[in-house]
Amino acid sequence: MARWLDGTKGNFADELAAFLAEPRGEVEDVAQTVTDVLADVRAKGGEAVARYTAKFDRLTLDPVTLQSDNVDLHALAAGCPADLREAIDYAAERITAYHERQRPSDNFFKDAEGIELGWRWTPLDSVGVYVPGGLASYPSSVLMNAVPAKLAGVKRIVMTAPAPGGQLSNAVAYAALKAGVDEYYPIGGAQAVAALTFGAGHLTPVDKIVGPGNAYVAEAKRQVFGRVGIDTIAGPSEILVIADESANPDWIAADLLSQCEHDTSSQSILITVEKPVGKSVEEAVEKQLKSLSTEVRARTSWETHGAIILAKDLDQAADIANEIAAEHLELAIDDPDILLPQIRHAGAVFLGHHTPEALGDYVTGSNHVLPTSRAARFSSGLGLTDFMKRMSVQRAGPDGFAALAPSVLRLAEAEGLPAHARSVSIRTNSGGSDGR
Amino acid sequence: MARWLDGTKGNFADELAAFLAEPRGEVEDVAQTVTDVLADVRAKGGEAVARYTAKFDRLTLDPVTLQSDNVDLHALAAGCPADLREAIDYAAERITAYHERQRPSDNFFKDAEGIELGWRWTPLDSVGVYVPGGLASYPSSVLMNAVPAKLAGVKRIVMTAPAPGGQLSNAVAYAALKAGVDEYYPIGGAQAVAALTFGAGHLTPVDKIVGPGNAYVAEAKRQVFGRVGIDTIAGPSEILVIADESANPDWIAADLLSQCEHDTSSQSILITVEKPVGKSVEEAVEKQLKSLSTEVRARTSWETHGAIILAKDLDQAADIANEIAAEHLELAIDDPDILLPQIRHAGAVFLGHHTPEALGDYVTGSNHVLPTSRAARFSSGLGLTDFMKRMSVQRAGPDGFAALAPSVLRLAEAEGLPAHARSVSIRTNSGGSDGR
Repeated sequence: MARWLDGTKGNFADELAAFLAEPRGEVEDVAQTVTDVLADVRAKGGEAVARYTAKFDRLTLDPVTLQSDNVDLHALAAGCPADLREAIDYAAERITAYHERQRPSDNFFKDAEGIELGWRWTPLDSVGVYVPGGLASYPSSVLMNAVPAKLAGVKRIVMTAPAPGGQLSNAVAYAALKAGVDEYYPIGGAQAVAALTFGAGHLTPVDKIVGPGNAYVAEAKRQVFGRVGIDTIAGPSEILVIADESANPDWIAADLLSQCEHDTSSQSILITVEKPVGKSVEEAVEKQLKSLSTEVRARTSWETHGAIILAKDLDQAADIANEIAAEHLELAIDDPDILLPQIRHAGAVFLGHHTPEALGDYVTGSNHVLPTSRAARFSSGLGLTDFMKRMSVQRAGPDGFAALAPSVLRLAEAEGLPAHARSVSIRTNSGGSDGR
Repeated sequence: MARWLDGTKGNFADELAAFLAEPRGEVEDVAQTVTDVLADVRAKGGEAVARYTAKFDRLTLDPVTLQSDNVDLHALAAGCPADLREAIDYAAERITAYHERQRPSDNFFKDAEGIELGWRWTPLDSVGVYVPGGLASYPSSVLMNAVPAKLAGVKRIVMTAPAPGGQLSNAVAYAALKAGVDEYYPIGGAQAVAALTFGAGHLTPVDKIVGPGNAYVAEAKRQVFGRVGIDTIAGPSEILVIADESANPDWIAADLLSQCEHDTSSQSILITVEKPVGKSVEEAVEKQLKSLSTEVRARTSWETHGAIILAKDLDQAADIANEIAAEHLELAIDDPDILLPQIRHAGAVFLGHHTPEALGDYVTGSNHVLPTSRAARFSSGLGLTDFMKRMSVQRAGPDGFAALAPSVLRLAEAEGLPAHARSVSIRTNSGGSDGR
């Protein structure tokens, strides 16, 4: 049975707020454990990383190289079936084409005062791509993180992915090599984040760490943020579908379940103006769940976190969608172009009946690393510029300097910063255009 | 006396690394205190905020409105002198003009498979601007944070700035109104970050928090990151100057001291190829320190964290600058354009002899909120897009869908996600272009 929320009722705003505030995913307090692991790896380096890897992944590492004789990325990649390689190649090409369009331009201009201003974009030197083990070890995620990094011009891409007992997906290995990963270490957890941040053995520190992980990895990224860059803190996946009578309930049900199957803490929500559409989708979800090999996970997600929301009209549906600010939003309606301008907050929007989210998860080329847990209110999906930074550049000549000087002096005085003022007045008083 | 490092010596790399690893600023462990304050405000709301404000700022607040009868932003702004208002207006205009050039374009295109792809930029709904109290309460920082937010289209800009005993700078008040701040609360510390994040009394939660603060504020921002957006974690200010014989040592000394005076943990570094230039600057710093009202702070900063680095040549100087990745970098050399292409990591670069950093701190229009503590390796200064986000949009028609479907099926199978595969196969099997 699905949970229903009724947008036509007076208490709906409170009901929606309470629904969105329900916790999803792990809520255990891992902060102290992570703090200890970070400090341990920082102090002991490769020895500590090898020790945690032996304990949690049953894998023996050389504490200097952080490698195992039982894990060879090239050998693993060679074991990836040909048709799967083709699909990975195709996805990589499309991701490359899409992200190339995000390349930012440098910009330089001279303003009315004669001041030259602008900025220059440069790539990061090095990036760590964290790839989780177990259920969430996806070749598609390797591509989504590493391909844009490579395209941005990052010279050194380091992948960490735990290989419990020496096991690593052939497809993950192939995707890593396809994307241009330069170094690979079979490590995971907070110890991998620590090694990427502080260095350990032959693994020297990187400048930024991207990629999803469990609660320990997320907390470790939060704690090292500032010393290295990080992407957003990834939460459980989400889909929101706005459907009208033109939608096929079976298709919508499949789309909702495609998120439910990720994890029991995933969230799938349908908004519709037509109660019968909601009823049909509810029935279709129930029917499809029974024939799904991932039924247990998906059913728990749907029954615990799923919802069908009845909206007064499409305007209210858009308002609700903005409030939810979902990672993925499908507009499975007759004319999605009419509603799109009203959508302000979503990670990615999928228009019309033939754009199930799964297309974007894999091969449209758009990035599938997207803000979760309502973070689409304030952040964007991963993109090319996440692997670059904008360096501001400015130059005044003697005339431009003279034009700006009085305001600088007044503000520096007001802020109680006499050396700031002096750095201007000393140039005013000594004059000259050659610096002397 | 300044500390000297010699780039021509064999152990220089290790020496530089050790120098850069020296701690600056507060290193006390504030995490647990901040965790407690956040939990308290989250549970008790305005009552807790009023309690902390009475304790730390000796100011009585109404726990519902979070306002004090003794702090009136409009009255305070009216007390700002006319010539200072003019300087603030001038800075605001130039900041506006500069950041307008950063406005990103939406982008939509159709690719070879007929897939429509692109993205749309939308502003955040609400932003909190944290303004510190005491020494670091700068009207220029209010402008640098609030003007780009307003320009981006943020509808609700909330400023918090502590007003100890009812005191708030007239210039900060004027700058806030000039920049278009919509709400002001005289609160600070971790309790202000908590109120902005969770809401308290009439202050409803914002989507992102920007602005510098002390160690408690920085830690609070780190802990709430994910629930709200934050800018970077701000550390002590820094300047790096590369100077040659064409530079005036007095001017360079003034520029170095303009950072030293911010805080005892600030850092000013000179790199030069010419030892006599270093000696002359060292002497000029000593001379200028004695006539500076901020001498105590500045001297501590210079003697504790400052350095003069002797480089073999300008190529090595650029390499060292990239390693340091300073917040501010002045190229006070004869032909800065020759060196600029070699600079990969810096927050902002100032070219030539007439561009002291102070120009950029106040009125070039470029943003003075810049990455510190080597974060320029992986992040940019504040800009217009920090107040916007990029929403990905995609659409496949039946033909485009058919082109992508096989790869999606193969990848979903490989990742063990049958509902992803079904969301595609169900559309393939039932056919039809109207969704039914």
